[in-house]
Parts: sequence; C-alpha cells; structure tokens
Amino acid sequence: MTDLRATPDTAIIWDHGRLLLLDQRLLPQQEVYLALTDLEDVSNAIRNMVVRGAPAIGIAAAYAVAMEAKICFASCPNTWVEQLLTKLDLLAKARPTAVNLMWSLDIMRAVIRKLPANVDPSPVLTAEACAVHLKDATANRNMGAFGADLISKPTAVITHCNAGALATGGYGTALGVIRSAYAAGNITQVYADETRPWLQGSRLTAWELLRDNIPTTLMADAAAAFRMARGDVGWVIVGADRIAANGDFANKIGTYQLAVTARHHGVKFMVAAPMSTIDVQTPNGNLIPIEERGSQELL
Amino acid sequence: MTDLRATPDTAIIWDHGRLLLLDQRLLPQQEVYLALTDLEDVSNAIRNMVVRGAPAIGIAAAYAVAMEAKICFASCPNTWVEQLLTKLDLLAKARPTAVNLMWSLDIMRAVIRKLPANVDPSPVLTAEACAVHLKDATANRNMGAFGADLISKPTAVITHCNAGALATGGYGTALGVIRSAYAAGNITQVYADETRPWLQGSRLTAWELLRDNIPTTLMADAAAAFRMARGDVGWVIVGADRIAANGDFANKIGTYQLAVTARHHGVKFMVAAPMSTIDVQTPNGNLIPIEERGSQELL
Repeated sequence: MTDLRATPDTAIIWDHGRLLLLDQRLLPQQEVYLALTDLEDVSNAIRNMVVRGAPAIGIAAAYAVAMEAKICFASCPNTWVEQLLTKLDLLAKARPTAVNLMWSLDIMRAVIRKLPANVDPSPVLTAEACAVHLKDATANRNMGAFGADLISKPTAVITHCNAGALATGGYGTALGVIRSAYAAGNITQVYADETRPWLQGSRLTAWELLRDNIPTTLMADAAAAFRMARGDVGWVIVGADRIAANGDFANKIGTYQLAVTARHHGVKFMVAAPMSTIDVQTPNGNLIPIEERGSQELL
Repeated sequence: MTDLRATPDTAIIWDHGRLLLLDQRLLPQQEVYLALTDLEDVSNAIRNMVVRGAPAIGIAAAYAVAMEAKICFASCPNTWVEQLLTKLDLLAKARPTAVNLMWSLDIMRAVIRKLPANVDPSPVLTAEACAVHLKDATANRNMGAFGADLISKPTAVITHCNAGALATGGYGTALGVIRSAYAAGNITQVYADETRPWLQGSRLTAWELLRDNIPTTLMADAAAAFRMARGDVGWVIVGADRIAANGDFANKIGTYQLAVTARHHGVKFMVAAPMSTIDVQTPNGNLIPIEERGSQELL
C-alpha cells in the first residue's frame, strides 16, 4: 500500500470495510500503509507500534470491533455477540498504559449490547467507530484553540514524544496546541525531544512539524534542562497516556524529568489530552500501570 | 591492528615510538587499535573521537608532541622548536571544552623550552608523555579510594557518559570511584545513561563495567528522574571536561539535567576529576566554551 499520499492527518483511514494504518515504525524514511481486516490484525498493529498514541490506539480499536463484528456475524449469526466480546477482552490487553483503548472498547460494547438480534451489526458499529474518530479530530481542533489561548506571548516550547496528528484522530493534542499557537504567532520555535528509546520525536514529531513548516529543532532528551537554563523556553507542552482522578498523569518516559526541570526553571507546563484520557477509576498516578518494554527489544 | 586484546585499561598504548589507540567509535562491536605516528594523526583522532574523555585526550596529545618532535628534529635540527610549537597550537584546537588538552600541551611546552639545542628531543619528551599517562592512572586509583569513602552504605548509582578507563590513563574518574565503591561492597547497581547523541554510556560505560562484572543496567537518559523517584538511587557520579575557578563545571550534555533532578530528589551528586581538569583561568561556568557538534553529524 504505497499509492496513498501520507499526511500527518491521514494516518488512520477507513477504506470500505478495511482499516488502513500508516506504518509509524517506518517513518520518516518510508510512508507505507498497512491494510488490516480483522481484530487480530489491529491488536498486532497496536502491540507492535504500527499505530501508537493513546487516542489513535482507541480509534484503531473501535474500527477493529466493527470489522470483527462483521466476521463473527457471518460465521455465527446467533452467537456472534459472545464471540466478539471475548475478542474485545484480548484487544484490551494490547497496550496497558493508554486508557483510551479501554474507553473506546467500552463505547463499542455499549453499542453492541443494544443491537437487535440476527441483524448484521457492522453498519452500526462502523458508524460508531467513524464517530469516535471524527469526534477526536474535532476535539483536538478545539483543544488546540483552548491551549493556544494560554500562551500569551511569543516563545519557544519543548515537546516530548509524539502527541500529534499521528497519535490521534487528527491535528494532535500537544501538537494541536502548538499548531494553533504557531498560527496565532505565539510560538517562535519548537524543540522536539528525540524521545529515546523509540525516537517518536525524531521520527514522528519532527516529520509532522516540518510538514507544516513550523520551525523545529530536534534535540537529545538530556539537553532540555540546559535549553531551559538558556532562557528562551516559555512552555513544555506534552500529551498523556492516562490521567488519574487526582490529576496525576502518565506519559512517555522522560516526561517526569521535564516536569521537574521545568519547575526548577519557572517554565510553564501544559498537558493536552481529550476526556477519553481521564480515568476516574484510578485514584492517583502510582496506581497507573506502566508499560516497560524489555531491554532486548530496545538494543 | 587487531592482534591486541583490548581491555578498558589498555585503550592508550605507547608502542616503541608510535601510539596505539583503541578506536572508541567501533566499541563495543569491534576492538580495533589504530597506529598513529605523528601529531596530525593524533589531532584527527581527537577531533573524530577515536579517543575521547578529557584526561585521555590530554595523554594522547602528550604522546603526539613526542612523536612530532622526533619528526621536526630529523628534518630541521636547528629550527625544530619553532616548527613544533606552531603545530602544538593546531593540536590545541582539536576539542574546545576539555581543558586537559591545553594542560598537557603546557607541560610539554615547558619541557621543550628547557631542552638543549641540537639534541634529539624525543627521548625526553617521550618520557614526559609516559609520566603524564602514568600519573593519571595512579591519580585515578587514589581518586577512586577517596570517592568510595564518601559512599557510606550500599546503594544504586547513576552515571552519565563515560568517565572510565577509556576516558583516562586507566581505571577512570567517575568509574574509578564506582569500581572502588563496588569493591568495598557499597554499590549494588549502576544505572548507565545511554548518553545521546553519541551513546558513550551504551557503547563504552556498559562495555567497561560488564568487563569488570559490575551489575549494570543501561537506561534512556530521560529515565533518570523516574529512577530517582523510585528511591533506590543514592548517588549520581560523573566526570568533568572542565572545572572553573568557582567550582562550576562542564560535562557532557545531560549532566546539568541530572544535577537538577538529583537535587529535587535529595540524591547526592559527585564529580570525580583530576587536578588537570581544573582551570583557574576561567572564573565561572558561563565562560567555559561549550562544544556544539552540528545536527548533520548527529543524524
């Protein structure tokens, strides 16, 4: 699938019954879409980081449910609901930290339970998945405007990992704020942490921002505090994988280090995330499960 | 030159009139020595990071002077001093931040000025270079013992970049302290920052410590503060490229970030460096020239 022209806003495409995902492992060198046709495909794509970013994972999961419902209904018109719900539980385990995956599956489960018996569920579930996708993209435009309003004068900003169009249904959360603030003339420069070990900053954030012609400098994660000390950074703007009931949040490793050093230097700190990232069931950050990928994968 | 068995303590070898340097760019995959025969070879090796680490750069430079003196004397027995001193000025510019390079050249210049005319200067200068080398290795053993005495109970430590045997005349500065404290039973675990962008931690520090069977975990630079927050890290131990008269110091990018986060978490911070790293001519850290390698080299 290389005939599509990839843009940051078209990383997730619903294409007549199948899901096309821009393979984020290959960016920025190659812009290749993978065509997925069932829940297991999507589960593997989430686990293997073809698609990543809490909101984007939730959206891909919603489409997975729609595709799998069609398959289950075709094979067992009477017992497809039980089959499908079992598979949803497997999908929920693909990535532990991002709560949006669970949130999205809850929405789809609620729709499934209301569906009439013996009718193909896929049109209704497909419409619901598209709605989840579009609502996220729309919410990000609004969030961008809200966040940009908080930045009152031109400044440089630091961002970490990728909370951009690629991580969401479009436009981005942290990068949505950055896009809107840049358009308003209040961002002079973005310093993108390269974000070891997986280099989401180097490969994804730099790719996105350069596509939008926003002045961007890639830097080693360890350079952020030195950059703050030099004085031209007004804000750190990041996304979130999960926000606990007390406001604690989990995000890519390195975010905490940025928060501590921002505080030391009097640099403001903004977390941009949709409602689906808030997990009121988790009282505080210490109870958020943190995904630790083994060193063998990283080396 | 692959017939030598490389160890952390034999990265710089004086071999009958030529200098053998373990090519640190190829570690840990390949252990290859380069044979250098004149000052320009050594200047290039320093600039291209075949050898790095402030003390090691100073030692290599001292040997370079001995080799070049022999060449200059052979070609112009009457005017070799002027020729040689001109070349020393070029060598001094190979790396700007590490003051040990200038310190070492000052020692060699002082010897050159005292030498009798029309006598081959290379034996005396070679002996001086060897003395610089050996004094550094000896000083590091002492420094290791001094530093280890400060660590009063078993703890995990974080180190950044490579301030090890590979960066010095042997044993290491920060890693010398870690070796001594481990031998005394007061280090349970070393967390080595991978040290982007050049990965001195991944490639050099991990290689050194694993050769010595010291329990070592490689981590992303951005993970250090999270590790401190978890509570098992008692010390951060690093080397220095230059220490100003007021005690400010410069070291690999990321060291400042570690210092700020260590302070926030009540983690102790130790800088291990020889006297040659102290630059009393520079009043404070803001006046230390910082080497910035271009982004093209890093990507």
